[in-house]
Amino acid sequence: MNNHREIIITLDAMGGDLGISAVVEGAYLASQKLSNIKYLFFGDEKQVLPLLKEKKISNISDLIHTSQIITNDIKPTLALKKFRDSSMYKAIESVKFKKSNALVSGGNTGALMVISSVIMRTINGINRPAIASMFPTKKSKTVMLDLGANIDCDVKNILDFAIMGNVFSKTVLGIKKPKIGLLNVGSEILKGNEIVQLSAKRLKKEKKINFYGFIEGNDIPNGIVDVVVTDGFTGNIALKIAEGTAELYTNYLKFSFKDSLYSKILYLMSLSILKSLWKKVNPSKYNGAMFLGLNGIVVKSHGRSDAEGFANAISVAHDLCINNFNEKI
Amino acid sequence: MNNHREIIITLDAMGGDLGISAVVEGAYLASQKLSNIKYLFFGDEKQVLPLLKEKKISNISDLIHTSQIITNDIKPTLALKKFRDSSMYKAIESVKFKKSNALVSGGNTGALMVISSVIMRTINGINRPAIASMFPTKKSKTVMLDLGANIDCDVKNILDFAIMGNVFSKTVLGIKKPKIGLLNVGSEILKGNEIVQLSAKRLKKEKKINFYGFIEGNDIPNGIVDVVVTDGFTGNIALKIAEGTAELYTNYLKFSFKDSLYSKILYLMSLSILKSLWKKVNPSKYNGAMFLGLNGIVVKSHGRSDAEGFANAISVAHDLCINNFNEKI
Repeated sequence: MNNHREIIITLDAMGGDLGISAVVEGAYLASQKLSNIKYLFFGDEKQVLPLLKEKKISNISDLIHTSQIITNDIKPTLALKKFRDSSMYKAIESVKFKKSNALVSGGNTGALMVISSVIMRTINGINRPAIASMFPTKKSKTVMLDLGANIDCDVKNILDFAIMGNVFSKTVLGIKKPKIGLLNVGSEILKGNEIVQLSAKRLKKEKKINFYGFIEGNDIPNGIVDVVVTDGFTGNIALKIAEGTAELYTNYLKFSFKDSLYSKILYLMSLSILKSLWKKVNPSKYNGAMFLGLNGIVVKSHGRSDAEGFANAISVAHDLCINNFNEKI
Repeated sequence: MNNHREIIITLDAMGGDLGISAVVEGAYLASQKLSNIKYLFFGDEKQVLPLLKEKKISNISDLIHTSQIITNDIKPTLALKKFRDSSMYKAIESVKFKKSNALVSGGNTGALMVISSVIMRTINGINRPAIASMFPTKKSKTVMLDLGANIDCDVKNILDFAIMGNVFSKTVLGIKKPKIGLLNVGSEILKGNEIVQLSAKRLKKEKKINFYGFIEGNDIPNGIVDVVVTDGFTGNIALKIAEGTAELYTNYLKFSFKDSLYSKILYLMSLSILKSLWKKVNPSKYNGAMFLGLNGIVVKSHGRSDAEGFANAISVAHDLCINNFNEKI
């Protein structure tokens, strides 16, 4: 593993709800932390170029002009057919044609998944790509997949997720024998629907992985396993509920300190502590959903994420590159 | 609505992981808050009676001796057949035979659901009972169902959940025109699996309810709707992830205040504020999962819940009684 080789990351400048400046600012922040990183931007030259200069990253960036933008309301199939000169489409092609090592986009998730799948195709042996992301836990963090790419899953899909999660946990997180848990409504052997029942049987037989068994929702934040596998429907809802609950708690916490003058003073005195806490639970910190299983590294940044979140998504892509994740699947 | 009529609550003294004393203590706590409440206990006389006397609630309690206990490892079907003299079975019968107005048990969830369903049967028009519970939100709270009674659901089940949630929200929470949301992976109309697609179409047609449309996981804590409907598989996982995430946050919060002497002092000074916060986010406060759709009121207390949590489950049952919830479905 050579951390010092140059990594080129393609950035879709037009993706993300907070505009091009959040993307460029994120690229700048990431470049401060990651040595030997270069960028390949795709987007509207007139808007992107001044920002690259302003942030002083034009020396490590190339920019290719594109004329179209795939907004969030465009259907993935339409995006695939009619948006060939979009920043996203061209950005995906750049990874396919080895112009860069990985892509980060904050754009339309469905379009990104469909176009990536069609252009890059899946790794040999993997039927469908999955979306994976990190969850904070009491112990450290866990990786969970699928988070929404595959709404209906069969046993083979679940097995693929387990294998990809296993490789990710080993190579990127450095865990020697990752414990793989299958998300279910109970840990008892007879619980759940047919798919989780059949999947558990299949996972138990698989020698390449260390299958822990069923886990329940609360086992994820408790850090019971290193990898959580589930279908994309459940995974997507799980991710968003965890994010929403953390936000709700922050909301309550702020409110609790506003009851009286005494509590307001305490709030000000505790602010640095609370800020470090919020940094820890901030979803931005875990921003960067990885599309695993494709012949190329694609990381989806949350549409709403700010520059810091985008920078985190870049470092996720960077991590996958330096650990040669795809080669190891 | 007459809040002053006498309500008799049956209590399964042998259910709950924390033992009989948590149940009796919970009954005592609830009796301090709820006027005109009486209890009908089922359990081992030798163990329960001394505790009733100790807590000075024997004057408002009847006790019926039972010889069996349905522990958590017993399969529901076995419990139904072979545990007819268990505290749970007899407790369910007492509601069926109108000896009391409602039942609260902290015992084996599967057994409680199966025995209740067989003995009480479902309300006319409702195919299957559902488990419902309250979620805290930024605005106030929302009710969500199903939380695990129905792993695989069809459109009729989802419609039943919506109708029961609607009546609950109106009668117990006093919301005039509750907004009903269907949990999905995106709010766009084409998202999700076949069941949510078909269910949305059906809910849209139903004149008795105010269907909001699809909601995403984070919309629950954000309080976007008053009622969340989903299948029992997704609902159970959602509930447990929310609980686990709140616990994780509390954990982080405590840890944040232990970095230095300064922060430890601040922690002590802020303790009363933090305690009121924890009370607010404590799952105990929302303890008491309701089995809706049966000809009788059954409330499941979390197995691990303490006396305070059990008291809350009793007040949930009490609320359903005084609002004549079942008559209004």
